[in-house]
Amino acid sequence: MMHGIFSITHRDPSCLARTGRLLLPHGEVETPVFMPVGTNGSVKAVDFSVLDDMGIRLILSNTYHLFLRPGVDIIREAGGLHSFIGWQGNILTDSGGYQVFSLAPFRKIREEGVYFRSHIDGSYHTLTPEGVVDIQTAFGSDVMMPLDVCTPPGISKKEAEEALEITTAWARRSKERWESLREESGGLLFGIVQGNFFHDLRRRSVEEICALELPGTAIGGLSVGESFPVFQEFLAFTAALLPSEVPHYLMGIGTPEYILEAVEQGIDMFDCVFPTRTARNASVFTRSGRISLRRERFTRDFGPLDPECTCYTCRRYTRAYLRHLFKAQEIMGPVLATIHNLHFLFTMVEEIRESIREGRFSRYKRAFLARYQEGTRADENE
Amino acid sequence: MMHGIFSITHRDPSCLARTGRLLLPHGEVETPVFMPVGTNGSVKAVDFSVLDDMGIRLILSNTYHLFLRPGVDIIREAGGLHSFIGWQGNILTDSGGYQVFSLAPFRKIREEGVYFRSHIDGSYHTLTPEGVVDIQTAFGSDVMMPLDVCTPPGISKKEAEEALEITTAWARRSKERWESLREESGGLLFGIVQGNFFHDLRRRSVEEICALELPGTAIGGLSVGESFPVFQEFLAFTAALLPSEVPHYLMGIGTPEYILEAVEQGIDMFDCVFPTRTARNASVFTRSGRISLRRERFTRDFGPLDPECTCYTCRRYTRAYLRHLFKAQEIMGPVLATIHNLHFLFTMVEEIRESIREGRFSRYKRAFLARYQEGTRADENE
Ligand SMILES: [Zn+2]
Ligand SMILES: [Zn+2]
Repeated sequence: MMHGIFSITHRDPSCLARTGRLLLPHGEVETPVFMPVGTNGSVKAVDFSVLDDMGIRLILSNTYHLFLRPGVDIIREAGGLHSFIGWQGNILTDSGGYQVFSLAPFRKIREEGVYFRSHIDGSYHTLTPEGVVDIQTAFGSDVMMPLDVCTPPGISKKEAEEALEITTAWARRSKERWESLREESGGLLFGIVQGNFFHDLRRRSVEEICALELPGTAIGGLSVGESFPVFQEFLAFTAALLPSEVPHYLMGIGTPEYILEAVEQGIDMFDCVFPTRTARNASVFTRSGRISLRRERFTRDFGPLDPECTCYTCRRYTRAYLRHLFKAQEIMGPVLATIHNLHFLFTMVEEIRESIREGRFSRYKRAFLARYQEGTRADENE
Repeated sequence: MMHGIFSITHRDPSCLARTGRLLLPHGEVETPVFMPVGTNGSVKAVDFSVLDDMGIRLILSNTYHLFLRPGVDIIREAGGLHSFIGWQGNILTDSGGYQVFSLAPFRKIREEGVYFRSHIDGSYHTLTPEGVVDIQTAFGSDVMMPLDVCTPPGISKKEAEEALEITTAWARRSKERWESLREESGGLLFGIVQGNFFHDLRRRSVEEICALELPGTAIGGLSVGESFPVFQEFLAFTAALLPSEVPHYLMGIGTPEYILEAVEQGIDMFDCVFPTRTARNASVFTRSGRISLRRERFTRDFGPLDPECTCYTCRRYTRAYLRHLFKAQEIMGPVLATIHNLHFLFTMVEEIRESIREGRFSRYKRAFLARYQEGTRADENE
């Protein structure tokens, strides 16, 4: 079944990298695309007008957080999530599965769904696959993710297999509910591949999830604590098994290194809190590596964060001033650093798309990393 | 001695209220004017571009804070404060006196100056009247304030008199230093009237300070903990003694009630952290009173903060969304509420100027307060 939401526009000759167009209810999105994370319906420390100006047309928001606060009823009453948060671009909402496993102080998985306690107030809640589709339908999400079971590295094969089986069963039930609600929802349901760090389980999960012929496929359970070589191996192995014609979404990655790796393996979409979280901690991307503005050496550095960056922060402010803002714990430190980090990453992804269109992605990746990694190491060794 | 920096353009027929034009090194400013406070060289939670867009041409920054962090050397190396913080509007810097008395964990006043410990790291420092002028000259401040001794209500007359005498002596020394530096500084030195809550001391301070014929006069030591009627009484008494032709600056006020009272007594300039600080605490001005966005009743209120406000926040976001941002401790809560509060206050001061030009300030004040105070009381009684 073709959903007609995705078309591949260019393929790089030397690897799986490709560019494409994703047609979503709130407008077209060029891929590869990085989605900033707006956990609570706000991309932390940055106003939506800044995202508008950067040309960002797709963000991610967290079902788990919004379900607990402010709650589905309020978002429904507001006329959906776009209307509640005042943003008319596209919104992908995750399933809440990952947060239940990483944030809830207590959770119990049953066939029916997952029973857990809120990390906010300790209250008890249940999320079922059907309930999660209902919630995202009430949100008016442009892309919905089904409830899944995400597992950490190091578990037994038996545990990984059980998680996989529940994930598949829940994906089937999610699809059924989503189809029964298509009239009232324009949102698209993606599948999520699990299988932990076992090749045969990854293969089996891809087969079971892709058999559902959903409009997109996500790879879950990577970048969850494993080493970079293990990440590389399982990304390459899993991505190569995906049908080419649907959009490939790799969940939870957002550093230049991981993004370049993902694009090389044919990934079209990715999200991560890293660029915004690290900005709030005074750490900013530059062409010559990631630097911490807390370093002594920036005290009298009256140049921009990155001399090659054209973002608002770099056009108006200096490293010395931003360092001062962070030292003085001024809110504008995180705000200005976040603007820069998002702009940096968006510019990089734009360049990635251009390099793919021109058939030189591998060269771009090598050149970018050579310079970036050397600088990052130098800063970290200070 | 006329400094030619200030011209009165209109006088209200029923009180001392007046409009004027203040010619400062970084451009003309219409008075009455509210100055947002940028303690550490950043108006908390709001970017300078937002101030630019609001037409704000004058802010206040704190000498005490900038002296301690990042330090005078760094600001001098950056080419002055405007260049260091990236703002090309006017900057008035206070003397640091008030902060030494309110923030430093230890201070000792001598004839020479004030000896104190930093509230940041406990280090020892000395500020002298000459040193404070030197610092503000290095900053490139458009308006400088001389070191003074600010006292709280309830002290003995003897103590108040001593503080007054030191304040006058320091003002003389400040003037001398300022005049010797006129070549390298385009900044204007104002005088500060003290005298605590004693009529004869206030009169004596006005006489001694105004005899120095500085380009402007500030009233210090009001709104320091006294009741509103006492504030009113000493404001009216002191303001009536000031020479009409210089700008009158009342330090440390920024609520609608205090601003209206000050303007009625012929005050031209005022500053306060209140509008920005209260915004960060989820409290916002509206025509119908100040409201706390934390109230339960705003949970499903999908209207703007103030239906009559045209600020960015009110055009894009709702009370329910801002309440949610504050509940979720999102940085954008303080940011968006600060934009609104500053816009609200600037609009109000603009209306004040218009009402003076049209000779109806007293009517404006009455009408504004009737509505505003009723709403504020209703919100506080919830
Ligand atoms: Zn930048
Ligand atoms: Zn507003």
